[in-house]
Amino acid sequence: MSTSTKPLVFYTAKITPNGHQVSVLLEELKAAYPGGNTDYDLEIINMGLGTQKEPWFLKLNPNGRIPVLVDRSQDNFAVFESSAILLYLAQQYDKDHKFWFNPSTNLKEHSEMMQWMFFTHGGIDPMQGQSNHFRHFAPIPYARDYFLDETKRCYGVLEIRLADRDYLAGEGKGKYSLADIKTFPWVRLHAFTGIETLDEWPNVKAWVRRCEAREGAQAGINLGRT
Amino acid sequence: MSTSTKPLVFYTAKITPNGHQVSVLLEELKAAYPGGNTDYDLEIINMGLGTQKEPWFLKLNPNGRIPVLVDRSQDNFAVFESSAILLYLAQQYDKDHKFWFNPSTNLKEHSEMMQWMFFTHGGIDPMQGQSNHFRHFAPIPYARDYFLDETKRCYGVLEIRLADRDYLAGEGKGKYSLADIKTFPWVRLHAFTGIETLDEWPNVKAWVRRCEAREGAQAGINLGRT
Repeated sequence: MSTSTKPLVFYTAKITPNGHQVSVLLEELKAAYPGGNTDYDLEIINMGLGTQKEPWFLKLNPNGRIPVLVDRSQDNFAVFESSAILLYLAQQYDKDHKFWFNPSTNLKEHSEMMQWMFFTHGGIDPMQGQSNHFRHFAPIPYARDYFLDETKRCYGVLEIRLADRDYLAGEGKGKYSLADIKTFPWVRLHAFTGIETLDEWPNVKAWVRRCEAREGAQAGINLGRT
Repeated sequence: MSTSTKPLVFYTAKITPNGHQVSVLLEELKAAYPGGNTDYDLEIINMGLGTQKEPWFLKLNPNGRIPVLVDRSQDNFAVFESSAILLYLAQQYDKDHKFWFNPSTNLKEHSEMMQWMFFTHGGIDPMQGQSNHFRHFAPIPYARDYFLDETKRCYGVLEIRLADRDYLAGEGKGKYSLADIKTFPWVRLHAFTGIETLDEWPNVKAWVRRCEAREGAQAGINLGRT
Protein backbone atom coordinates (compact mmCIF):
# COMPACT_ATOMS: atom_id res chain seq x y z
CA MET A 1 0.00 0.00 0.00
CA SER A 2 2.65 2.48 1.01
CA THR A 3 6.24 2.85 -0.09
CA SER A 4 7.15 4.73 3.09
CA THR A 5 10.05 3.42 5.09
CA LYS A 6 9.16 5.17 8.31
CA PRO A 7 9.38 2.67 11.18
CA LEU A 8 5.86 3.22 12.56
CA VAL A 9 2.31 3.56 11.26
CA PHE A 10 -0.22 5.25 13.52
CA TYR A 11 -3.90 4.67 12.75
CA THR A 12 -6.20 7.14 14.46
CA ALA A 13 -9.21 9.39 13.95
CA LYS A 14 -9.55 13.14 14.28
CA ILE A 15 -9.96 14.74 17.71
CA THR A 16 -10.39 11.72 19.96
CA PRO A 17 -8.79 11.55 23.40
CA ASN A 18 -7.73 7.93 22.88
CA GLY A 19 -5.91 8.93 19.71
CA HIS A 20 -4.40 12.00 21.39
CA GLN A 21 -2.75 9.90 24.08
CA VAL A 22 -0.69 8.14 21.45
CA SER A 23 0.00 11.20 19.28
CA VAL A 24 1.22 13.10 22.33
CA LEU A 25 3.69 10.35 23.24
CA LEU A 26 4.82 9.97 19.61
CA GLU A 27 5.53 13.70 19.43
CA GLU A 28 7.28 13.69 22.82
CA LEU A 29 9.47 10.78 21.70
CA LYS A 30 10.29 12.46 18.39
CA ALA A 31 11.53 15.53 20.27
CA ALA A 32 13.36 13.55 22.97
CA TYR A 33 15.07 11.09 20.59
CA PRO A 34 15.86 12.94 17.36
CA GLY A 35 17.33 9.91 15.58
CA GLY A 36 14.16 9.07 13.65
CA ASN A 37 13.51 5.70 15.32
CA THR A 38 9.93 6.70 16.11
CA ASP A 39 9.07 8.53 12.89
CA TYR A 40 5.59 7.54 11.83
CA ASP A 41 3.10 7.67 9.03
CA LEU A 42 -0.27 9.02 10.06
CA GLU A 43 -3.31 7.16 8.75
CA ILE A 44 -6.65 8.79 9.53
CA ILE A 45 -9.44 6.23 9.78
CA ASN A 46 -12.87 7.43 8.70
CA MET A 47 -15.05 6.21 11.55
CA GLY A 48 -18.19 7.48 9.84
CA LEU A 49 -17.56 5.12 6.94
CA GLY A 50 -16.90 2.23 9.33
CA THR A 51 -13.36 1.68 8.06
CA GLN A 52 -12.43 0.40 11.53
CA LYS A 53 -14.73 -2.60 10.98
CA GLU A 54 -13.22 -3.65 7.63
CA PRO A 55 -11.42 -7.03 7.52
CA TRP A 56 -7.96 -5.55 6.93
CA PHE A 57 -8.32 -3.35 10.00
CA LEU A 58 -9.77 -6.13 12.18
CA LYS A 59 -6.59 -8.09 11.44
CA LEU A 60 -4.71 -5.30 13.19
CA ASN A 61 -7.28 -4.90 15.98
CA PRO A 62 -10.05 -7.49 16.34
CA ASN A 63 -11.88 -4.96 18.56
CA GLY A 64 -12.36 -2.64 15.55
CA ARG A 65 -11.30 0.56 17.26
CA ILE A 66 -8.67 3.24 16.94
CA PRO A 67 -5.87 3.83 17.84
CA VAL A 68 -3.65 1.12 16.41
CA LEU A 69 0.11 1.18 16.02
CA VAL A 70 2.02 -0.95 13.52
CA ASP A 71 5.76 -1.26 14.01
CA ARG A 72 7.28 -1.92 10.57
CA SER A 73 10.72 -2.22 12.15
CA GLN A 74 9.51 -5.21 14.21
CA ASP A 75 7.98 -7.40 11.48
CA ASN A 76 4.86 -5.23 11.33
CA PHE A 77 3.94 -5.99 14.92
CA ALA A 78 0.48 -4.53 15.58
CA VAL A 79 -0.57 -3.05 18.94
CA PHE A 80 -4.11 -2.05 19.91
CA GLU A 81 -5.61 -0.43 23.04
CA SER A 82 -4.33 3.09 23.64
CA SER A 83 -2.65 2.24 26.96
CA ALA A 84 -0.94 -0.84 25.53
CA ILE A 85 0.43 1.32 22.70
CA LEU A 86 1.82 3.84 25.21
CA LEU A 87 3.50 1.05 27.15
CA TYR A 88 4.90 -0.63 24.03
CA LEU A 89 6.34 2.64 22.72
CA ALA A 90 7.97 3.28 26.10
CA GLN A 91 9.39 -0.23 26.40
CA GLN A 92 10.66 -0.36 22.84
CA TYR A 93 11.79 3.22 22.26
CA ASP A 94 12.15 5.18 25.51
CA LYS A 95 15.28 3.40 26.68
CA ASP A 96 16.30 6.32 28.93
CA HIS A 97 12.94 6.23 30.75
CA LYS A 98 12.17 9.87 30.03
CA PHE A 99 8.42 9.25 30.08
CA TRP A 100 8.11 6.18 32.30
CA PHE A 101 9.75 4.39 35.20
CA ASN A 102 12.06 1.41 34.89
CA PRO A 103 10.38 -1.55 36.62
CA SER A 104 13.76 -3.23 37.19
CA THR A 105 15.12 -0.36 39.26
CA ASN A 106 12.02 1.65 40.28
CA LEU A 107 9.22 -0.86 40.66
CA LYS A 108 7.17 1.26 43.07
CA GLU A 109 7.16 4.31 40.81
CA HIS A 110 6.47 2.05 37.83
CA SER A 111 3.54 0.49 39.68
CA GLU A 112 2.17 3.92 40.65
CA MET A 113 2.24 4.86 36.98
CA MET A 114 0.43 1.67 36.01
CA GLN A 115 -2.16 2.15 38.77
CA TRP A 116 -3.10 5.57 37.43
CA MET A 117 -3.06 4.38 33.83
CA PHE A 118 -5.46 1.58 34.74
CA PHE A 119 -7.58 4.01 36.80
CA THR A 120 -8.08 6.14 33.71
CA HIS A 121 -8.36 3.23 31.28
CA GLY A 122 -11.13 1.54 33.25
CA GLY A 123 -12.57 4.63 34.96
CA ILE A 124 -12.35 8.08 33.39
CA ASP A 125 -12.20 6.73 29.82
CA PRO A 126 -15.34 4.53 29.83
CA MET A 127 -17.29 6.73 32.27
CA GLN A 128 -16.62 9.99 30.42
CA GLY A 129 -17.17 8.15 27.13
CA GLN A 130 -20.57 6.87 28.26
CA SER A 131 -21.35 10.27 29.70
CA ASN A 132 -20.81 11.69 26.21
CA HIS A 133 -22.98 8.98 24.67
CA PHE A 134 -25.93 9.63 26.97
CA ARG A 135 -25.52 13.39 26.67
CA HIS A 136 -25.24 13.68 22.90
CA PHE A 137 -26.65 10.53 21.29
CA ALA A 138 -29.12 8.86 23.67
CA PRO A 139 -30.38 11.52 26.09
CA ILE A 140 -31.81 9.45 28.95
CA PRO A 141 -31.75 11.61 32.09
CA TYR A 142 -30.92 8.84 34.59
CA ALA A 143 -28.07 7.40 32.52
CA ARG A 144 -26.76 10.86 31.58
CA ASP A 145 -26.61 11.98 35.21
CA TYR A 146 -25.25 8.65 36.44
CA PHE A 147 -22.24 8.73 34.13
CA LEU A 148 -21.73 12.46 34.56
CA ASP A 149 -21.64 12.03 38.34
CA GLU A 150 -19.21 9.14 38.01
CA THR A 151 -16.95 11.22 35.73
CA LYS A 152 -16.95 14.05 38.29
CA ARG A 153 -16.23 11.57 41.08
CA CYS A 154 -13.20 10.37 39.10
CA TYR A 155 -12.00 13.98 38.69
CA GLY A 156 -12.33 14.23 42.48
CA VAL A 157 -10.03 11.24 42.87
CA LEU A 158 -7.45 12.95 40.64
CA GLU A 159 -7.87 16.13 42.72
CA ILE A 160 -6.89 14.27 45.90
CA ARG A 161 -3.90 12.70 44.17
CA LEU A 162 -2.68 16.02 42.76
CA ALA A 163 -3.07 17.95 46.03
CA ASP A 164 0.65 17.89 46.76
CA ARG A 165 2.21 16.92 43.47
CA ASP A 166 2.66 18.11 39.88
CA TYR A 167 2.20 14.76 38.11
CA LEU A 168 0.31 11.55 38.84
CA ALA A 169 3.23 9.17 39.41
CA GLY A 170 6.75 9.29 40.81
CA GLU A 171 8.47 10.29 43.99
CA GLY A 172 8.13 13.78 45.46
CA LYS A 173 6.16 16.05 43.15
CA GLY A 174 6.14 13.30 40.52
CA LYS A 175 7.40 13.13 36.95
CA TYR A 176 5.50 13.66 33.69
CA SER A 177 4.89 10.11 32.53
CA LEU A 178 2.59 7.76 30.66
CA ALA A 179 0.09 8.18 33.52
CA ASP A 180 -0.36 11.88 32.67
CA ILE A 181 -0.22 11.28 28.91
CA LYS A 182 -2.97 8.70 29.37
CA THR A 183 -5.22 10.95 31.42
CA PHE A 184 -5.04 14.65 30.54
CA PRO A 185 -6.31 14.17 26.94
CA TRP A 186 -9.61 12.96 28.45
CA VAL A 187 -9.93 15.60 31.15
CA ARG A 188 -9.13 18.52 28.85
CA LEU A 189 -12.25 17.68 26.82
CA HIS A 190 -14.52 18.08 29.87
CA ALA A 191 -16.72 20.71 28.19
CA PHE A 192 -18.01 18.20 25.60
CA THR A 193 -19.11 16.07 28.56
CA GLY A 194 -21.09 18.97 30.00
CA ILE A 195 -18.57 19.96 32.67
CA GLU A 196 -18.15 23.63 31.82
CA THR A 197 -15.11 24.40 33.95
CA LEU A 198 -12.59 22.58 36.12
CA ASP A 199 -12.92 25.23 38.87
CA GLU A 200 -14.27 22.61 41.26
CA TRP A 201 -10.96 20.74 40.97
CA PRO A 202 -8.21 23.41 41.01
CA ASN A 203 -5.33 20.93 41.25
CA VAL A 204 -6.67 19.05 38.25
CA LYS A 205 -7.14 22.31 36.35
CA ALA A 206 -3.55 23.38 36.99
CA TRP A 207 -2.26 19.93 36.04
CA VAL A 208 -4.13 19.92 32.70
CA ARG A 209 -2.61 23.34 31.90
CA ARG A 210 0.83 22.05 32.94
CA CYS A 211 0.58 19.05 30.62
CA GLU A 212 -0.99 20.97 27.74
CA ALA A 213 1.77 23.60 27.87
CA ARG A 214 4.39 21.09 26.73
CA GLU A 215 5.48 21.34 23.11
CA GLY A 216 5.06 17.61 22.53
CA ALA A 217 1.57 17.70 23.99
CA GLN A 218 0.60 20.60 21.74
CA ALA A 219 1.97 18.87 18.67
CA GLY A 220 0.21 15.64 19.58
CA ILE A 221 -3.14 17.25 20.22
CA ASN A 222 -3.04 19.26 17.03
CA LEU A 223 -1.92 16.36 14.86
CA GLY A 224 -4.09 15.81 11.82
CA ARG A 225 -6.28 18.75 12.68
CA THR A 226 -5.42 20.78 9.59
CA MET B 1 -4.18 -3.55 63.85
CA SER B 2 -2.80 -6.97 63.05
CA THR B 3 0.11 -8.89 64.50
CA SER B 4 0.43 -11.06 61.40
CA THR B 5 3.78 -11.21 59.72
CA LYS B 6 2.54 -12.48 56.39
CA PRO B 7 4.10 -10.40 53.63
CA LEU B 8 0.85 -9.38 51.88
CA VAL B 9 -2.59 -8.09 52.81
CA PHE B 10 -5.36 -8.56 50.28
CA TYR B 11 -8.48 -6.40 50.69
CA THR B 12 -11.43 -7.65 48.70
CA ALA B 13 -15.17 -8.33 48.86
CA LYS B 14 -17.07 -11.57 48.41
CA ILE B 15 -17.77 -12.92 44.93
CA THR B 16 -16.64 -10.07 42.72
CA PRO B 17 -14.79 -10.70 39.46
CA ASN B 18 -12.32 -7.90 40.17
CA GLY B 19 -11.44 -9.53 43.47
CA HIS B 20 -11.25 -12.98 41.88
CA GLN B 21 -8.59 -11.88 39.42
CA VAL B 22 -6.25 -11.13 42.29
CA SER B 23 -7.18 -14.14 44.44
CA VAL B 24 -6.61 -16.46 41.47
CA LEU B 25 -3.13 -15.08 40.89
CA LEU B 26 -2.30 -15.16 44.62
CA GLU B 27 -3.32 -18.82 44.79
CA GLU B 28 -1.43 -19.64 41.59
CA LEU B 29 1.70 -17.96 42.99
CA LYS B 30 1.38 -19.75 46.32
CA ALA B 31 1.34 -23.10 44.51
CA ALA B 32 4.09 -22.20 42.05
CA TYR B 33 6.46 -20.68 44.65
CA PRO B 34 6.03 -22.61 47.91
CA GLY B 35 8.51 -20.48 49.89
CA GLY B 36 5.83 -18.30 51.51
CA ASN B 37 6.89 -15.03 49.86
CA THR B 38 3.33 -14.37 48.70
CA ASP B 39 1.44 -15.57 51.77
CA TYR B 40 -1.33 -13.12 52.51
CA ASP B 41 -3.91 -12.08 55.03
CA LEU B 42 -7.40 -11.85 53.62
CA GLU B 43 -9.43 -8.80 54.67
CA ILE B 44 -13.05 -8.83 53.53
CA ILE B 45 -14.41 -5.32 53.04
CA ASN B 46 -18.11 -4.88 53.76
CA MET B 47 -19.23 -2.89 50.72
CA GLY B 48 -22.77 -2.62 52.09
CA LEU B 49 -21.47 -0.70 55.09
CA GLY B 50 -19.36 1.56 52.84
CA THR B 51 -16.08 0.54 54.47
CA GLN B 52 -14.35 1.18 51.13
CA LYS B 53 -15.15 4.90 51.52
CA GLU B 54 -13.68 5.26 55.02
CA PRO B 55 -10.61 7.51 55.39
CA TRP B 56 -8.21 4.68 56.31
CA PHE B 57 -9.20 2.79 53.15
CA LEU B 58 -9.06 5.88 50.92
CA LYS B 59 -5.44 6.26 52.00
CA LEU B 60 -4.80 2.88 50.38
CA ASN B 61 -6.99 3.59 47.35
CA PRO B 62 -8.29 7.13 46.77
CA ASN B 63 -10.80 5.60 44.33
CA GLY B 64 -12.54 3.80 47.22
CA ARG B 65 -12.83 0.42 45.54
CA ILE B 66 -11.67 -3.13 46.05
CA PRO B 67 -9.36 -4.90 45.44
CA VAL B 68 -6.33 -3.40 47.15
CA LEU B 69 -3.03 -5.10 47.92
CA VAL B 70 -0.65 -3.95 50.63
CA ASP B 71 2.88 -5.34 50.55
CA ARG B 72 4.18 -5.32 54.12
CA SER B 73 7.54 -6.60 52.90
CA GLN B 74 7.96 -3.43 50.81
CA ASP B 75 7.28 -0.74 53.42
CA ASN B 76 3.53 -1.31 53.21
CA PHE B 77 3.40 -0.32 49.57
CA ALA B 78 -0.26 -0.13 48.51
CA VAL B 79 -1.50 -1.06 45.05
CA PHE B 80 -5.00 -0.44 43.71
CA GLU B 81 -6.73 -1.30 40.41
CA SER B 82 -7.07 -5.05 39.85
CA SER B 83 -4.87 -5.09 36.74
CA ALA B 84 -2.14 -3.06 38.40
CA ILE B 85 -2.14 -5.52 41.31
CA LEU B 86 -1.75 -8.45 38.89
CA LEU B 87 1.16 -6.72 37.19
CA TYR B 88 2.84 -5.75 40.47
CA LEU B 89 2.57 -9.30 41.84
CA ALA B 90 4.09 -10.67 38.65
CA GLN B 91 6.91 -8.12 38.56
CA GLN B 92 7.74 -8.49 42.24
CA TYR B 93 7.15 -12.19 42.85
CA ASP B 94 6.94 -14.18 39.60
CA LYS B 95 10.63 -14.00 38.78
CA ASP B 96 10.48 -17.11 36.58
CA HIS B 97 7.71 -15.61 34.43
CA LYS B 98 5.35 -18.52 34.98
CA PHE B 99 2.27 -16.32 34.58
CA TRP B 100 3.56 -13.49 32.42
CA PHE B 101 6.10 -12.65 29.74
CA ASN B 102 9.43 -10.98 30.34
CA PRO B 103 9.40 -7.62 28.52
CA SER B 104 13.21 -7.60 28.33
CA THR B 105 13.39 -10.83 26.33
CA ASN B 106 9.84 -11.32 24.97
CA LEU B 107 8.48 -7.85 24.36
CA LYS B 108 5.96 -8.89 21.71
CA GLU B 109 4.38 -11.59 23.89
CA HIS B 110 4.45 -9.19 26.85
CA SER B 111 2.72 -6.55 24.74
CA GLU B 112 0.08 -9.04 23.56
CA MET B 113 -0.64 -9.84 27.19
CA MET B 114 -0.95 -6.15 28.05
CA GLN B 115 -3.19 -5.50 25.03
CA TRP B 116 -5.68 -8.14 26.20
CA MET B 117 -5.48 -7.00 29.81
CA PHE B 118 -6.31 -3.46 28.72
CA PHE B 119 -9.05 -4.76 26.40
CA THR B 120 -10.74 -6.39 29.38
CA HIS B 121 -9.96 -3.60 31.84
CA GLY B 122 -11.50 -0.91 29.63
CA GLY B 123 -13.98 -3.11 27.72
CA ILE B 124 -15.45 -6.25 29.23
CA ASP B 125 -15.07 -5.02 32.82
CA PRO B 126 -16.92 -1.67 32.56
CA MET B 127 -19.38 -2.86 29.89
CA GLN B 128 -20.39 -6.04 31.72
CA GLY B 129 -20.41 -4.08 34.99
CA GLN B 130 -22.78 -1.46 33.53
CA SER B 131 -24.82 -4.21 31.95
CA ASN B 132 -25.30 -5.64 35.44
CA HIS B 133 -26.20 -2.21 36.82
CA PHE B 134 -28.89 -1.55 34.22
CA ARG B 135 -30.21 -5.10 34.48
CA HIS B 136 -30.45 -5.38 38.24
CA PHE B 137 -30.48 -1.91 39.76
CA ALA B 138 -31.74 0.62 37.20
CA PRO B 139 -33.77 -1.26 34.61
CA ILE B 140 -33.85 1.15 31.68
CA PRO B 141 -34.43 -0.90 28.50
CA TYR B 142 -32.25 1.17 26.16
CA ALA B 143 -29.29 1.26 28.54
CA ARG B 144 -29.70 -2.38 29.52
CA ASP B 145 -29.69 -3.56 25.90
CA TYR B 146 -26.93 -1.18 24.90
CA PHE B 147 -24.50 -2.52 27.50
CA LEU B 148 -25.61 -6.11 27.04
CA ASP B 149 -24.98 -5.85 23.29
CA GLU B 150 -21.57 -4.32 23.93
CA THR B 151 -20.69 -7.12 26.36
CA LYS B 152 -21.68 -9.70 23.76
CA ARG B 153 -19.66 -7.87 21.12
CA CYS B 154 -16.62 -8.07 23.42
CA TYR B 155 -17.18 -11.82 23.86
CA GLY B 156 -17.21 -12.02 20.06
CA VAL B 157 -13.80 -10.33 19.95
CA LEU B 158 -12.47 -12.94 22.40
CA GLU B 159 -14.03 -15.67 20.23
CA ILE B 160 -12.03 -14.50 17.20
CA ARG B 161 -8.85 -14.35 19.26
CA LEU B 162 -9.34 -17.84 20.70
CA ALA B 163 -10.22 -19.49 17.36
CA ASP B 164 -6.79 -21.08 17.00
CA ARG B 165 -5.30 -20.81 20.46
CA ASP B 166 -5.77 -21.99 24.05
CA TYR B 167 -4.90 -18.75 25.84
CA LEU B 168 -5.10 -15.05 25.01
CA ALA B 169 -1.40 -14.20 24.79
CA GLY B 170 1.81 -15.89 23.75
CA GLU B 171 3.24 -17.62 20.71
CA GLY B 172 1.56 -20.63 19.15
CA LYS B 173 -1.42 -21.74 21.20
CA GLY B 174 -0.51 -19.21 23.87
CA LYS B 175 0.35 -19.53 27.55
CA TYR B 176 -1.91 -19.10 30.60
CA SER B 177 -1.01 -15.61 31.76
CA LEU B 178 -2.23 -12.44 33.44
CA ALA B 179 -4.36 -11.79 30.34
CA ASP B 180 -6.46 -14.90 31.05
CA ILE B 181 -6.45 -14.34 34.81
CA LYS B 182 -7.74 -10.81 34.15
CA THR B 183 -10.53 -11.90 31.83
CA PHE B 184 -12.07 -15.29 32.64
CA PRO B 185 -13.36 -14.22 36.11
CA TRP B 186 -15.62 -11.73 34.31
CA VAL B 187 -16.80 -14.01 31.52
CA ARG B 188 -17.59 -16.95 33.82
CA LEU B 189 -20.21 -14.76 35.55
CA HIS B 190 -22.10 -14.21 32.28
CA ALA B 191 -25.39 -15.57 33.68
CA PHE B 192 -25.70 -12.68 36.18
CA THR B 193 -25.45 -10.36 33.18
CA GLY B 194 -28.35 -12.13 31.48
CA ILE B 195 -26.27 -14.18 29.06
CA GLU B 196 -27.59 -17.65 29.86
CA THR B 197 -24.99 -19.72 28.02
CA LEU B 198 -21.74 -19.26 26.16
CA ASP B 199 -22.90 -21.56 23.33
CA GLU B 200 -22.73 -18.66 20.88
CA TRP B 201 -18.98 -18.42 21.56
CA PRO B 202 -17.70 -22.02 21.72
CA ASN B 203 -14.02 -21.07 21.82
CA VAL B 204 -14.68 -18.72 24.72
CA LYS B 205 -16.73 -21.40 26.49
CA ALA B 206 -13.91 -23.95 26.18
CA TRP B 207 -11.35 -21.40 27.34
CA VAL B 208 -13.35 -20.48 30.46
CA ARG B 209 -13.58 -24.19 31.34
CA ARG B 210 -9.83 -24.58 30.68
CA CYS B 211 -8.97 -21.71 33.02
CA GLU B 212 -11.49 -22.69 35.69
CA ALA B 213 -10.16 -26.25 35.78
CA ARG B 214 -6.84 -25.12 37.23
CA GLU B 215 -6.34 -25.74 40.95
CA GLY B 216 -5.15 -22.18 41.54
CA ALA B 217 -8.16 -20.79 39.76
CA GLN B 218 -10.52 -22.90 41.83
CA ALA B 219 -8.84 -21.88 45.06
CA GLY B 220 -8.91 -18.22 44.06
CA ILE B 221 -12.55 -18.21 43.03
CA ASN B 222 -13.66 -19.99 46.18
CA LEU B 223 -11.61 -17.82 48.51
CA GLY B 224 -13.61 -16.30 51.32
CA ARG B 225 -16.79 -18.01 50.19
CA THR B 226 -17.23 -20.12 53.31
